[in-house]
Amino acid sequence: MSEEKQRRSKVVVALGGNALQEAGTPPTAEAQLDVVRKTCEYLADINCKGYEMAIVHGNGPQVGRIVLGQEIASKADDNLPAMPFDVCGAMSQGYIGYQIQQSLRDALRNRNRNVPVVTLLTQVVVGAEDPAFQNPTKPIGPFYTEAEAKKLAEEKGYAMKEDAGRGWRRVVASPVPKRIAEIDSVKRLWDSTIVVTAGGGGIPVIENMDGSLTGVAAVIDKDLAAERLAEDMETDFLLILTEVDRVSINYKKPDQKDLATITVAEAIKYMEEGHFAPGSMLPKVMAAVKFARRFPGKKAIITSLYKAVDALEGKAGTVITMA
Amino acid sequence: MSEEKQRRSKVVVALGGNALQEAGTPPTAEAQLDVVRKTCEYLADINCKGYEMAIVHGNGPQVGRIVLGQEIASKADDNLPAMPFDVCGAMSQGYIGYQIQQSLRDALRNRNRNVPVVTLLTQVVVGAEDPAFQNPTKPIGPFYTEAEAKKLAEEKGYAMKEDAGRGWRRVVASPVPKRIAEIDSVKRLWDSTIVVTAGGGGIPVIENMDGSLTGVAAVIDKDLAAERLAEDMETDFLLILTEVDRVSINYKKPDQKDLATITVAEAIKYMEEGHFAPGSMLPKVMAAVKFARRFPGKKAIITSLYKAVDALEGKAGTVITMA
Repeated sequence: MSEEKQRRSKVVVALGGNALQEAGTPPTAEAQLDVVRKTCEYLADINCKGYEMAIVHGNGPQVGRIVLGQEIASKADDNLPAMPFDVCGAMSQGYIGYQIQQSLRDALRNRNRNVPVVTLLTQVVVGAEDPAFQNPTKPIGPFYTEAEAKKLAEEKGYAMKEDAGRGWRRVVASPVPKRIAEIDSVKRLWDSTIVVTAGGGGIPVIENMDGSLTGVAAVIDKDLAAERLAEDMETDFLLILTEVDRVSINYKKPDQKDLATITVAEAIKYMEEGHFAPGSMLPKVMAAVKFARRFPGKKAIITSLYKAVDALEGKAGTVITMA
Repeated sequence: MSEEKQRRSKVVVALGGNALQEAGTPPTAEAQLDVVRKTCEYLADINCKGYEMAIVHGNGPQVGRIVLGQEIASKADDNLPAMPFDVCGAMSQGYIGYQIQQSLRDALRNRNRNVPVVTLLTQVVVGAEDPAFQNPTKPIGPFYTEAEAKKLAEEKGYAMKEDAGRGWRRVVASPVPKRIAEIDSVKRLWDSTIVVTAGGGGIPVIENMDGSLTGVAAVIDKDLAAERLAEDMETDFLLILTEVDRVSINYKKPDQKDLATITVAEAIKYMEEGHFAPGSMLPKVMAAVKFARRFPGKKAIITSLYKAVDALEGKAGTVITMA
């Protein structure tokens, strides 16, 4: 790929949880900043290769701790009421976005690139009629006894589920992202600026009959939110970063096979055969398939942070294309 | 002022605490959203009158509750360590910015104006050499016993002060805002978009020798941060909104006098005479003086939310000008 061609390439980067927090390190903001700083070295390399980029990050463990902490504080002090889940999501965008924009700016400056990096608080519209709301599956917050769980279900209308013998937890829906409310601002900044947006999949909101927005308790998959953004921006690549260099079939079995390229048809076949774990590789492949289908000729890539540049240049990772 | 002239007028609006939380209402996010929605009706009116605007909000009570809640949670659960103060500030920008951008968009839509509203996470650079760091004055977080306070001072290097007989508290510096790190993005969005920026005065960062940024525990006055923004954008107005319609001398005394206009020289004289309360009207007048001095001919205005439009049109509020 020529330098000139590269210079015009656009990519949405979806950052997995390991880009923010390393296994075994303490769950402090300070330890997370260390990881984010390392992650941003790799992200800066992508930008230095001439790719225009936007960044979507996950927020699972972070928003989980915010919810848990507020639950504890609210019981200890009436003046510290717990916030609704959408506000917790907004706070996690603040927390993580701040660290990324600070670290990525510094990493770029070290490479003599003064590219602005900014986090936009981002609402993502989901459908009130999304069937996910009939079957909430994403556990959030603390564990409760059965009695506590039933009380919460009655008093607050929470959906509560028993979680593998460990107790009861609140579950929320994981609806499909329909629209990024702040997409106009992303578009205006894109040419000049690296935008961190739709963090944690976006703050979930529904659109009311009068067009106003209301936050809801839901978890939007960040890979699907990144795909939504890549569609809106018509980027050349959707780059989904995770812990492994390539997508595998028969993962962790003797006949594991790592995949360099797959077509949409192959990906669907593998999904149907159950090769990809729900909540892990499955949503990534689903997001990749959606992008590849939408833009035949463009590439969705799943790989690790470390192979990201090589993967964009066709030398690593798993590339998903229409044909 | 003609419609045409108004259409080209730019204003930075600094929102006081009463724009976010009403006295006597519970400190919940839900109650705050109700207040923010009302506030945004007035802000939408300003925009509908043809003023281009950016919004800077305070965050004192909100970041205070975040800090307190984390303190409590961290004692109860080792997996919920308290975050550093700069991160708490970033989280408060997420919390408050989300509510403002959602509510203001809705209020504008109701007036048939589809103006994008977006919150930028904003770092504000302060000087490591700022004398405020030698004399921290802003109390944050919980009250401690003297013994606890001394332990924290030793172990974490916190500055601790006795607070009017109520116990000991951590105090942090209130340095002067030098530079808005994300000003480029504000500039790019300004023409088309209402930007919520420098919330809580901005996330305080210092610039290291190598040009990198590091978050610090400090509180930047939000009126001074708004003034910094108004200088950078060379806006026509700096509009500081507070609880009263006008600045007064001899406030709450029999000879109270509400001021319609004051010159910088008069304002300085009144400040020296001690007419304005520190932490309340004083920083507002200081910010107004700084703006009026920087741009002779332009106006700084201090008034209430309810009089904002009238004040911009010269019919209410206190106007501070160079001469």
